[in-house]
Amino acid sequence: MIKAAPFDFPYDGRLVAENTALVVIDLQQDFLSTTGYFARKGYDPSPLRAILPTVNRLISAARKAGVTIIHTRQGYRADMADMTPYEKWRRKRSGLDGTDILLRSGAGFQIVPEIDVAPDDIIVDKTCNSAFTYTDFELVLRAQGITHLMFSGCTTDVCVHTTLREACDRNFQCLTISDACASGDRQAHEAALHMVTVEDGVFGVLADSAAVIDGLSRLGGRRHADA
Amino acid sequence: MIKAAPFDFPYDGRLVAENTALVVIDLQQDFLSTTGYFARKGYDPSPLRAILPTVNRLISAARKAGVTIIHTRQGYRADMADMTPYEKWRRKRSGLDGTDILLRSGAGFQIVPEIDVAPDDIIVDKTCNSAFTYTDFELVLRAQGITHLMFSGCTTDVCVHTTLREACDRNFQCLTISDACASGDRQAHEAALHMVTVEDGVFGVLADSAAVIDGLSRLGGRRHADA
Amino acid sequence: MIKAAPFDFPYDGRLVAENTALVVIDLQQDFLSTTGYFARKGYDPSPLRAILPTVNRLISAARKAGVTIIHTRQGYRADMADMTPYEKWRRKRSGLDGTDILLRSGAGFQIVPEIDVAPDDIIVDKTCNSAFTYTDFELVLRAQGITHLMFSGCTTDVCVHTTLREACDRNFQCLTISDACASGDRQAHEAALHMVTVEDGVFGVLADSAAVIDGLSRLGGRRHADA
Amino acid sequence: MIKAAPFDFPYDGRLVAENTALVVIDLQQDFLSTTGYFARKGYDPSPLRAILPTVNRLISAARKAGVTIIHTRQGYRADMADMTPYEKWRRKRSGLDGTDILLRSGAGFQIVPEIDVAPDDIIVDKTCNSAFTYTDFELVLRAQGITHLMFSGCTTDVCVHTTLREACDRNFQCLTISDACASGDRQAHEAALHMVTVEDGVFGVLADSAAVIDGLSRLGGRRHADA
Repeated sequence: MIKAAPFDFPYDGRLVAENTALVVIDLQQDFLSTTGYFARKGYDPSPLRAILPTVNRLISAARKAGVTIIHTRQGYRADMADMTPYEKWRRKRSGLDGTDILLRSGAGFQIVPEIDVAPDDIIVDKTCNSAFTYTDFELVLRAQGITHLMFSGCTTDVCVHTTLREACDRNFQCLTISDACASGDRQAHEAALHMVTVEDGVFGVLADSAAVIDGLSRLGGRRHADA
Repeated sequence: MIKAAPFDFPYDGRLVAENTALVVIDLQQDFLSTTGYFARKGYDPSPLRAILPTVNRLISAARKAGVTIIHTRQGYRADMADMTPYEKWRRKRSGLDGTDILLRSGAGFQIVPEIDVAPDDIIVDKTCNSAFTYTDFELVLRAQGITHLMFSGCTTDVCVHTTLREACDRNFQCLTISDACASGDRQAHEAALHMVTVEDGVFGVLADSAAVIDGLSRLGGRRHADA
Repeated sequence: MIKAAPFDFPYDGRLVAENTALVVIDLQQDFLSTTGYFARKGYDPSPLRAILPTVNRLISAARKAGVTIIHTRQGYRADMADMTPYEKWRRKRSGLDGTDILLRSGAGFQIVPEIDVAPDDIIVDKTCNSAFTYTDFELVLRAQGITHLMFSGCTTDVCVHTTLREACDRNFQCLTISDACASGDRQAHEAALHMVTVEDGVFGVLADSAAVIDGLSRLGGRRHADA
Repeated sequence: MIKAAPFDFPYDGRLVAENTALVVIDLQQDFLSTTGYFARKGYDPSPLRAILPTVNRLISAARKAGVTIIHTRQGYRADMADMTPYEKWRRKRSGLDGTDILLRSGAGFQIVPEIDVAPDDIIVDKTCNSAFTYTDFELVLRAQGITHLMFSGCTTDVCVHTTLREACDRNFQCLTISDACASGDRQAHEAALHMVTVEDGVFGVLADSAAVIDGLSRLGGRRHADA
């Protein structure tokens, strides 16, 4: 069980490693580097970089507990077959025309090297803000028997929140980790965290990384059991 | 064309009545009445009631222009077959157990009588916050050839925003009408409007009702043509 | 456990009433009556009528065992908002223009009175051939914890098979009941049953109603337990 | 316009290269080679190999006409995160345990070298039988403005038909090319073609490759226009 607001997670007190995933949203060069998409849009990526140690602590605690780790990566197909005329117009307007920024073939598509990605981690690539839309994310979650999701990554207000909302609508149990998410827009970040808890938890619950790590440490874990 | 921020709508200047819908989200008794779900959750429904005249003005302008009007209604099936154990737990926690609040069989499910619903309007019922998830909303939009959506209704931060995000991911062209949306949480409402425009319009554009009505008035309209 | 080909159902031997549904596809007047859609298309509905006693025996056995019963109904919205120009063209070509055949507002939309529909049964309305597409079918199945589906109804080659294929792709465990499905086209019916078992059960397994009833009778059942 | 049964394609006579795609389903080593998945399941892949020249003629005609070419490939993720316990059981039962057959990392996942795949062709990878389910196929089709699909590939009764059915439910205009599809099961192949036309074209229309090539040749084509 993880101490959370407006109620503890999960609601029935049954936290089970096999049913739970830590979802790490879009911690890619395009968002975190000083020359990537996000920086070129005029945002300061330093709040995004600031969460990396926290996310790594969570990844480490999840691994120990036997919780599945899923990383998502945002990017258009290398052939741009999934890009609409509107998206091409926005791309041009952003000065990204002719670059490989936000393409799966670009260097910026890679997860930043600071993040601890293990061979057993699952990686889901997406074009949309939601990790569910036009991807195999839900297929993988259901195939793995995962019903409980803990969210981290960037940006809180765009891709984290869109994926979180879709996860709630599909009846996954959701927890957002407040200090493991970040945005380039401080107001939007704080409001996004606040929105999780409106209507007594309309998008699940909110906890900080210390509470999550504490809850995971009491799980035992598959890896310990194997030893 | 409608004056909007961060860019006019639609981006290519081609506003066409046949391809456009005014979406009116969840203006139901359960959210707007003083005895409904929302009031019982401790929220003041008066900001929601305050937008009704504005929404009606938009509906009137949309009708004149020949723009399709779609109302959504949120509610669980009368047989509650779509309600999970978690949702039953939340329902009990909210003191709604044994009531017909948020059920399609309840009086609160109806759209408030102040809203001008015409026989030709389309009504989509949903269980989720997103009007797209597990409904025929996308089927109807595509069957009607609708590619451009203008959003109004409640609440800005929950059902409007979740539907808006899904619409963007499915590549509909989206405009949120700032003074035709409302929430019981002022901070969340304002943040939700702000979020539309981050990353230079990541969820489309924002306009007020005056700009929308002005844009619609210049469309001509099917009804005028019929006359 | 139910004796089936090419392997018994479910594959792991664990038949559990709470996780299982009997799905009864489209046994409506539009398909079964001598004046409905199907008859007007030139098909003889008598093979469809012939399965009704078998489907009722299955419904009765499922009820006793505590297995959920889900009926689907095919029809366009009464406002026809989900009908494309192509479908209107086909409708006209079939001489259905101006009728209420295949509309949810028509008498033909109702399930035939011979079928035993109880107040606790779940009804899912659909526009498409698949019960999954643009409906709340999957939402209901997952909310109810249903993972195993047994298919009956009509027509074997169109709506039963399309729903079955989608169910398999979504990783539900599927059994098709050979003598509880029917079609107006004998060749298509038989081929549809055969297709279930190609590639050693690519769409799950095939059993007859006697085997299903026998398997259900050994389940015990919630109702007996309640008594 | 393409001569087809039960009616010509498309129904309104407006065949437009930009809105049309030739879909080539799963012509991969795992299905066509004598040591792949299909052969190991006991099927003779020679009927599948026999359509390759026909499919290449169609690809060539489609390229000349400016019609988009989309190849699909079936396979589990290399990390098998999308494989359920049931699928692992079936895999073991088929003697595929420990092999890389049907994995995206396997040599059998590749499209056979006989098929003319150009750099501009679009490739969609899938786990399910339907190319729509848990993939970006629909995202790509809509982004490209493609509304008309012509189907070829293997196997007629499983992946071609499941994708075709889903395409129809999503209101794409569909044509199945009778002599450009194949299956290891002759009865299932023929029945699958027959099923397209039941109920006066419930899954669209059927044409042979000669009729399709003839129709495409009269389109003019983007490439000719460019010359």
